[in-house]
Amino acid sequence: MQEFGVIGLSVMGKNLALNIHSKGYSVAGFSIDKPEVDALAKYADDKLKPTYTWEEFVNSLEKPRKILIMIRAGKPVDLTLEKLTKLLEPGDIVIDGGNSNFHDTRRRFHELEKFGLHFIGMGVSGGEEGALHGPALMPGGDEAAFEKVRPILEAIAAKTPEGRPCVSYIGPEASGHYVKMVHNGIEYGIMQLFSEAYDMLRKACGLSNDEMSALFDKWNHEDLQCYLAEITAEVLKKDDDLTSDKVIDHILNEASYKGTGNWTLEDAIVLGAPISVIAEAVLARFMSKATTRTGKEISVDQSKISSDLPELIASALYLGQAVCYAQGFMQLKMAAKAYDWTLRYPGIAQNWEAGCIIRSKTLKDIEDAFEENPEINNLFEAPFFAKMMQDRLPDLRRVVSVAAENGIPTPTLSAALNYLESIFNPSLPANLIQGQRDYFGAHTYFRNDREGVFHTEWYDEK
Amino acid sequence: MQEFGVIGLSVMGKNLALNIHSKGYSVAGFSIDKPEVDALAKYADDKLKPTYTWEEFVNSLEKPRKILIMIRAGKPVDLTLEKLTKLLEPGDIVIDGGNSNFHDTRRRFHELEKFGLHFIGMGVSGGEEGALHGPALMPGGDEAAFEKVRPILEAIAAKTPEGRPCVSYIGPEASGHYVKMVHNGIEYGIMQLFSEAYDMLRKACGLSNDEMSALFDKWNHEDLQCYLAEITAEVLKKDDDLTSDKVIDHILNEASYKGTGNWTLEDAIVLGAPISVIAEAVLARFMSKATTRTGKEISVDQSKISSDLPELIASALYLGQAVCYAQGFMQLKMAAKAYDWTLRYPGIAQNWEAGCIIRSKTLKDIEDAFEENPEINNLFEAPFFAKMMQDRLPDLRRVVSVAAENGIPTPTLSAALNYLESIFNPSLPANLIQGQRDYFGAHTYFRNDREGVFHTEWYDEK
Repeated sequence: MQEFGVIGLSVMGKNLALNIHSKGYSVAGFSIDKPEVDALAKYADDKLKPTYTWEEFVNSLEKPRKILIMIRAGKPVDLTLEKLTKLLEPGDIVIDGGNSNFHDTRRRFHELEKFGLHFIGMGVSGGEEGALHGPALMPGGDEAAFEKVRPILEAIAAKTPEGRPCVSYIGPEASGHYVKMVHNGIEYGIMQLFSEAYDMLRKACGLSNDEMSALFDKWNHEDLQCYLAEITAEVLKKDDDLTSDKVIDHILNEASYKGTGNWTLEDAIVLGAPISVIAEAVLARFMSKATTRTGKEISVDQSKISSDLPELIASALYLGQAVCYAQGFMQLKMAAKAYDWTLRYPGIAQNWEAGCIIRSKTLKDIEDAFEENPEINNLFEAPFFAKMMQDRLPDLRRVVSVAAENGIPTPTLSAALNYLESIFNPSLPANLIQGQRDYFGAHTYFRNDREGVFHTEWYDEK
Repeated sequence: MQEFGVIGLSVMGKNLALNIHSKGYSVAGFSIDKPEVDALAKYADDKLKPTYTWEEFVNSLEKPRKILIMIRAGKPVDLTLEKLTKLLEPGDIVIDGGNSNFHDTRRRFHELEKFGLHFIGMGVSGGEEGALHGPALMPGGDEAAFEKVRPILEAIAAKTPEGRPCVSYIGPEASGHYVKMVHNGIEYGIMQLFSEAYDMLRKACGLSNDEMSALFDKWNHEDLQCYLAEITAEVLKKDDDLTSDKVIDHILNEASYKGTGNWTLEDAIVLGAPISVIAEAVLARFMSKATTRTGKEISVDQSKISSDLPELIASALYLGQAVCYAQGFMQLKMAAKAYDWTLRYPGIAQNWEAGCIIRSKTLKDIEDAFEENPEINNLFEAPFFAKMMQDRLPDLRRVVSVAAENGIPTPTLSAALNYLESIFNPSLPANLIQGQRDYFGAHTYFRNDREGVFHTEWYDEK
């Protein structure tokens, strides 16, 4: 009997099965696609069992059965669950490790509950390599069920620099997939921040690809240390196979997307979460596909650019990245309230500290901040981040100002700045909007000096 | 027999019925809420007939019947249509004038088609006053059916400054409600732009409410002429009933919303439309409710602010407003393609030129631009707007730069600037994003110098 089962054996499922196997656990693998099972069969031994039918698979597993589904999100997951509910027994545990939409996960969680089955929606990040050597895992669902699969998940997960596994329990119901969705939204945001920094470095500072690569590499050993800084340095210095240039200069400037970042924004609209950096990053990808490219290149008078601009950009990027995380965690807090979840924010940060695209030194600071005070509404209320904001805000202001003066678009750097200028602002000008709404639609307003609902007869003098 | 029927007689339905009646048409009114019918009965004459049952209402109408439903969007509309399909005959025309979601209107259009009924989804803007004296109307659906109600709708609609009715046919199926939705998104955008201008005028220029009111009034007689400039001037100068201050200084700075602007952003995400000004305006309303207001007031050294800043702000506002319209029309173009609608862009602009919140001088320029060339993908491709951009972009850059330097949040002014710096930009930095995606996920990329799909082996040197 095998300790763990994996359904779906394309590259992610296969690599996760091999990862589990390599940690000494026995695994059964199944796929409705026979060649996938054949491919796994090449590695078969007494602890790795390829199976060719649903029944063979299910009957090969120890009870309570522990099954990970790694298949395409959507309809295939429902068909698989329909099949499994006929074969499994109360107490069995089913984990969906795909990129499922959290609405589907909510529905499935409660459907499987009726059969006495425990459903864990688990975000998996890290791609093929991560699956094989250490993914970031974000499991949500029944905590008692999680405890039963925890040893295996901890064994295969990525480890933080301190050696802790990136797989602590996140929260109930669909919260695991929700957290993965927000992870992807943050990923869109930070990637766009980096692309704007790159744009300023080349256009305003006149740096070459090699010079920029060296800078990002340097920054990756300072405060900004993060996977995206590391790979930006790699991407910028890579030679092209087809020309004598760097490949970066021949990659078409259209950013594609699969849409999980878009989901983050969609739910932010439902919740009323002001995640402007993520929103601008989603729209910047749209923009890159909508651009007509008929304009002239802007030319920046580099002699007027201060020589410390690259270091200001590093500072702005560091702060902007923190804003992006802060917005993601703010959305998580709002989601927890709206969907009635208790979430473990330090655990979420921990799960992102290795194995995933958005891993960074800052995430450890976020973990510490939430560990110290889980009640903060906004990351920048925590002392570490309050100080970061105080120290770096002038740099971000300066960078956005220079970009604006010189015609360089910085949608996410601007959004990060505007967020910080707004989130603690005692005098946002929304009173004018509320006044206009009362003027044209009698929508009423609250006052800042007394309780109650008010309406003004705006045109009594007419 | 009455020429027209209205179902739903709360303030909007009642006022529209009275408007139609005042133009010499005979009207029957019905509501499931008897007191509403009683209220209409006070105005009854041989051309205004209150009715108390579905049957009495339907039987009082000339064939083909022409019925306007003015009730709360959602379930009540479905219940009303269910009732009507049992009583009406093929060829009858049903208009939904509520704020229905366009997805519902699509579904209803096709459901009523099966009964041989013509369904017109019609956006209505202008509030109570507009309903009585001249609303902006945005009818979509079967064009032949529209032609039959056109004389009545033209009679009651607002008129452009040239005397043309704000009710030309927009397009098929749910396009009328879609256009109303985008109207509301644009409304969010322009209102937020005005609030940022107000914020800069008070904080950076140190102007009093009366001085600002005078400025907006002046601008309303220049290029910026628009309803929102007019009412901003009114709102800023209004005395408070409860204190000796202006009321604007006591309205709580939290902007509420009913959510139709949010729908615009939701569908923009589906379509991939980069409507950043509208997005930032939606998020700015969220922000106004999320703010903790624990921060210090910023203090701007006004001696360093150039005395021409107010005029630069007017210029930036004028250009920003045009960006907001441009984004709305861009979304309409993308929606037309996605939903297979032929839309009449000059007619849409015309319908917005009077009677609605976003009416402005610029809308006539938009109508002319689309009349001259309906094929433009972006408003700023039209000569008038290309010149506006050329003339005003330096002002917008300057305003955003001053705001950034001085800690004044300008999410929509920044978004408008970043949009203009991006939309024709030959070298957006999205190549870095696409390079990163290929690095960590083998997502492949296109090249700017040859056809095909490419992937780089990024770590072959490792």
